[in-house]
Amino acid sequence: MNNIKLTIEYDGTNYYGWQRQKDKITIQEAIEVAIASITKETIEVIGSSRTDAGVHAKGFVANFKTNSSVPPKRFREALNTKLPDDIVIIKSEEVNDDFHARYNAKGKTYEYNLLNTEAPSALLRNYSYHPKYDLDVDAMKEAAKYFVGTHDFIAFRSQGSSVKGTVRTIFDLKVEKKDEIIKISVTGDGFLYNMVRIIVGTLIEVGRGKNKPQYIEEIIAKKDRKLAGFCVPAKGLLLKEVYY
Amino acid sequence: MNNIKLTIEYDGTNYYGWQRQKDKITIQEAIEVAIASITKETIEVIGSSRTDAGVHAKGFVANFKTNSSVPPKRFREALNTKLPDDIVIIKSEEVNDDFHARYNAKGKTYEYNLLNTEAPSALLRNYSYHPKYDLDVDAMKEAAKYFVGTHDFIAFRSQGSSVKGTVRTIFDLKVEKKDEIIKISVTGDGFLYNMVRIIVGTLIEVGRGKNKPQYIEEIIAKKDRKLAGFCVPAKGLLLKEVYY
Repeated sequence: MNNIKLTIEYDGTNYYGWQRQKDKITIQEAIEVAIASITKETIEVIGSSRTDAGVHAKGFVANFKTNSSVPPKRFREALNTKLPDDIVIIKSEEVNDDFHARYNAKGKTYEYNLLNTEAPSALLRNYSYHPKYDLDVDAMKEAAKYFVGTHDFIAFRSQGSSVKGTVRTIFDLKVEKKDEIIKISVTGDGFLYNMVRIIVGTLIEVGRGKNKPQYIEEIIAKKDRKLAGFCVPAKGLLLKEVYY
Repeated sequence: MNNIKLTIEYDGTNYYGWQRQKDKITIQEAIEVAIASITKETIEVIGSSRTDAGVHAKGFVANFKTNSSVPPKRFREALNTKLPDDIVIIKSEEVNDDFHARYNAKGKTYEYNLLNTEAPSALLRNYSYHPKYDLDVDAMKEAAKYFVGTHDFIAFRSQGSSVKGTVRTIFDLKVEKKDEIIKISVTGDGFLYNMVRIIVGTLIEVGRGKNKPQYIEEIIAKKDRKLAGFCVPAKGLLLKEVYY
């Protein structure tokens, strides 16, 4: 049996997230259907994470086991001919039998795009969020520093997750302004439910002057979800890379 | 009567181009319907150019005359609440009575995005073209120089246009590679039907080694459409700016 690792780019706009759901179209299901049509097996694809409805990915990782004689590297093109054009396999390769896309993930980088213009954007409407505030990027950069490190991020988690530990390590959190976009990139060993989107909402409240950058320290220490910012919309979020 | 100039961003994916057509949804119609719902007048919007189905714009310009008492700058927000989210008014302003978005245009900048990767892109599928060749960007940059200047561009025009003169001036033509995208930006005083898309197709044939950069000079001199390259798909094209 071969263990195949897939690197996947997708536009999440038209899907109910990664994870298979009853009666709702998801990316996992689309890929499982495409694989089955090639291998004639019933297989399960293991994803590196669940992404919510509307979230996008450039480097999502998944794996599946197959007895098919299709050469591992050939799955890329074979699957791309079966998949809708908003899901693309960037790479397919054989990996060790014990590789597991979720359990073996050592870290991930997410990006969030804020549109910093007066008018909204027609072209970026599905790939950014338009907060309608003038944002102080320097204050946001200053605030970003307080997130880096190993902390209990329970204040930055939405309800509805069954994960037990809430301590995570953020290796890097960058805020960069380029033309009309403020891009927030965050790399960590793992993320709680909605954690990236709540961090971005918290940075916006600093950027619009509602809170001082130093307030991040207090939110983390007090472990209170109510002190952190709002959960920004899914559409501005992109899973950039998964590290193993 | 006020003459109102609109600067418009749109995602052309779901429209049959700018120009009003019978039984087909166009951007001009969507904007005229939105204006009429505010002013209660029957008005005609004059666009700076016709863009084809699937072509996008960041700085399309249009104008219309109205007796409405809506302050000119307020049309932006008023129209944006009426328009679908793939058409956005970036700016609305009062202009001289004799301003005409098409006749007064002195020049335009278009951009074309080529995807220079092995796999296609899910996220850029509607905003780029994926030529499937390895492209020599330096050769394309060299070829680009031959287009600049005042020439008869009849070899770079599709049939179906009724415009008489075929001499145009290209002020600037840049080829830039950034990550996975080769961006071609062209500024000129005007463009023949499909001219930008045929120029890009001609540059691709240089980039893949089919023709030498110097061959552009010969195509221009021989005025023969058959010597120029193919017309690349509309979806990679963006009208960036119109100059007055």
